[in-house]
Amino acid sequence: MVHTPVRSLPLVDLGYSTALLTDHYELTMLQAALRSGTAGRRAVFEVFARRLPAGRRYGVVAGVGRLLEMIEQFRFGERELEFLTSRGVVDESTAQWLAGYRFSGDIHGYPEGECYFPGSPILTVEAPFGEAVLLETLVLSVLNHDSAIASAASRMVNAAGGRPLIEMGSRRTHEAAGVAAARAAYVAGFATTSNLEAGRRYGIPTAGTSAHAFTLLHDSERHAFQSQLESLGEGTTLLVDTYDVERAVRTAVELAGPRLGAVRIDSGDLAVAAGRVRALLDSLGARDTRIVVTGDLDEHGIAALAAAPADAYGVGTALVTGSGAPTAALVYKMVARADSPDPDAPLRPVAKRSVGKPTRGGRKTAVRRLDAHGVACAEVVSTGELPAGPRDRLLPVPLVRGGEVVGREPLEAARERHAAALRELPATALQLSDGEPAIPTEFIDEIVFP
Amino acid sequence: MVHTPVRSLPLVDLGYSTALLTDHYELTMLQAALRSGTAGRRAVFEVFARRLPAGRRYGVVAGVGRLLEMIEQFRFGERELEFLTSRGVVDESTAQWLAGYRFSGDIHGYPEGECYFPGSPILTVEAPFGEAVLLETLVLSVLNHDSAIASAASRMVNAAGGRPLIEMGSRRTHEAAGVAAARAAYVAGFATTSNLEAGRRYGIPTAGTSAHAFTLLHDSERHAFQSQLESLGEGTTLLVDTYDVERAVRTAVELAGPRLGAVRIDSGDLAVAAGRVRALLDSLGARDTRIVVTGDLDEHGIAALAAAPADAYGVGTALVTGSGAPTAALVYKMVARADSPDPDAPLRPVAKRSVGKPTRGGRKTAVRRLDAHGVACAEVVSTGELPAGPRDRLLPVPLVRGGEVVGREPLEAARERHAAALRELPATALQLSDGEPAIPTEFIDEIVFP
Repeated sequence: MVHTPVRSLPLVDLGYSTALLTDHYELTMLQAALRSGTAGRRAVFEVFARRLPAGRRYGVVAGVGRLLEMIEQFRFGERELEFLTSRGVVDESTAQWLAGYRFSGDIHGYPEGECYFPGSPILTVEAPFGEAVLLETLVLSVLNHDSAIASAASRMVNAAGGRPLIEMGSRRTHEAAGVAAARAAYVAGFATTSNLEAGRRYGIPTAGTSAHAFTLLHDSERHAFQSQLESLGEGTTLLVDTYDVERAVRTAVELAGPRLGAVRIDSGDLAVAAGRVRALLDSLGARDTRIVVTGDLDEHGIAALAAAPADAYGVGTALVTGSGAPTAALVYKMVARADSPDPDAPLRPVAKRSVGKPTRGGRKTAVRRLDAHGVACAEVVSTGELPAGPRDRLLPVPLVRGGEVVGREPLEAARERHAAALRELPATALQLSDGEPAIPTEFIDEIVFP
Repeated sequence: MVHTPVRSLPLVDLGYSTALLTDHYELTMLQAALRSGTAGRRAVFEVFARRLPAGRRYGVVAGVGRLLEMIEQFRFGERELEFLTSRGVVDESTAQWLAGYRFSGDIHGYPEGECYFPGSPILTVEAPFGEAVLLETLVLSVLNHDSAIASAASRMVNAAGGRPLIEMGSRRTHEAAGVAAARAAYVAGFATTSNLEAGRRYGIPTAGTSAHAFTLLHDSERHAFQSQLESLGEGTTLLVDTYDVERAVRTAVELAGPRLGAVRIDSGDLAVAAGRVRALLDSLGARDTRIVVTGDLDEHGIAALAAAPADAYGVGTALVTGSGAPTAALVYKMVARADSPDPDAPLRPVAKRSVGKPTRGGRKTAVRRLDAHGVACAEVVSTGELPAGPRDRLLPVPLVRGGEVVGREPLEAARERHAAALRELPATALQLSDGEPAIPTEFIDEIVFP
């Protein structure tokens, strides 16, 4: 084998510019605005969802931590500028402006793991237009993907009713999206992931033992189980559905003894199979051996297994494709701007007036309003700045101040926040059936005391 | 602004290891197989689709070029090994094996842009088990994502009937998936992309001019149009649906003159709006000004505009989400293996025997069988090695030989191949309605002369 040196994967900081993960038109808008003298006008862009995916009762904000890292790396180096000028995307004076670009504005937003509803001002970017417009594509890519995954994942976690979930969808999505999907699933409450890069980069616990190919590689199933047990110990999970499930379970317990960690079933009627395997394991004295079920599970499939003796679920395709809603459909819209580049010029609300795609002008904030029992009853979105009432929970937090990231936090904090946000929602929020958003969004000019 | 040095984006070669874009269980299987002495057994893994997404008539292979790059970068450097050992994923002796890992086997596969059908042996990886099993997750991630996008994109290109398509979906998918999606769409026949990194990395033409925010930034629509025309010239595309489409079109032609490049309509009933705008442009003398329509288009929306005077379509969400099929659902299954590590030991077919997930054992090849008119009539898949008939087109090509990539080609070659492969399919293949695969897949032991 030839050994060619290869650099290791970058650390958490990306180590390279993210500035070209951007749409062409952000750059042409910048150039035209620089020329017309409007690029310096202070502007407010807002990220929100016009609606939730059909039938969903809440959404989950995810990707905020990743986004903050990527905004820090959003600079135009020589190679980016060479590309942009040589291809005629921007002219020389715009390129000079880009060479000095670093986001200098403020970003507020719903912290990661928080729930959102239609019209929730999930992220608010305030900066001179030229600085803020450039971030549109990156902001949306990260939040749309990660929020779609977390929103689906959260429903699966609810459906599992406390049983642990293993994320194993990397193979069914883009190789980098798989890493982000594992992270989003963890925020939403998944226990582990199969994705090693997600383990390395984010510290998420990783899991996995063997596939059918491993059994097929060996001279017999017994040979494969022996090999796995010798290497991974009796606590491992043996895959028992390559040939005949009952025979495999008997062989597994015979070889591993009653302290075998788990068996995995990946095909067939999982409820029926889990029931039979449980009875067989018990009859063989392996009462503590767990049953892991996998194979095209989504939240509905998980819920259907509630009465089955499954101890853990593995979820792949449905997780990484957002279980029918692969994008959160968040948009990034300018909602206010100044009339001049004067930094003290007042902001005035703006909004497109077109059919079918409503936007509401004005810089917004929002609270989650709770009733006397501490249950959420409304998402109150306001263009005013008044303090909230005693049972209102202010939702946006500062993420970037004057270009400096201030919203960094451990991933565990997002995970805990999501669990807490869910507990606060009315019980209907957790229904898997199609429905309306769990709480209404109320738009007011000022947040008033309840 | 603080200027912090930042490295530019890597060149086409990734510059870092892709080895952790992998599932945990690939590594535990390797370790157990090393221990039991089976890791060196020659094995053949096959990538195939059990079925096409519901109603689809063909699939499009994409991502091959990206995959070959990533396999070259699949090595375990110090940081990867430190992670794997410190977290207990593998033991020291496995880590030593990994430190020397470089894929040494052979890979054959359908070249990029080729069409595929259920059971087509899209990729065949032949190597010692330990080397081949490690590639599973990466192979599937790349091919599943890119093929899903290209398969949807191809239908959109057909629906557009020769009118150019602009890919603009980056914001609705993971930031790195967006780059790959632009590439896959280009393979399938899209004309341009909004994604600048796709332009830089793959040389795909990029396009874009302005969004509603640009109009809202200015003191008036007239002010915005003036600003854009001064910067980008009369050949630019003006967005005309921020306020009132008719007024905007009049302003646009008044300011730009009859040689205005294009106007873009992003909302409302696109067919009705395009008809009115065409009539208005013509009445104003702007007969060569094109009309670009965007806004939640998919292949069906594009087809519905066939009679409308639209000159180009922009497609975002539907493209990057595979228009209802966000993953190609390809699997990577071991189909044959040797009984010993002896490199000359014969391969014997293997297959899981379970309900619901059929696999066919044996190393396979395939031809597309054409009728006397040169129209494809069957996908013939064989476990034999016989030469094909005179009207059979052999599908797999060598991609990697003895660990060296031999299947590198320009992206244009894939794009041309896809167009040619489509022309060869029966006309029913191009129907957008739900249907069966355009040609049947026939499994035989040997490819026989027609």
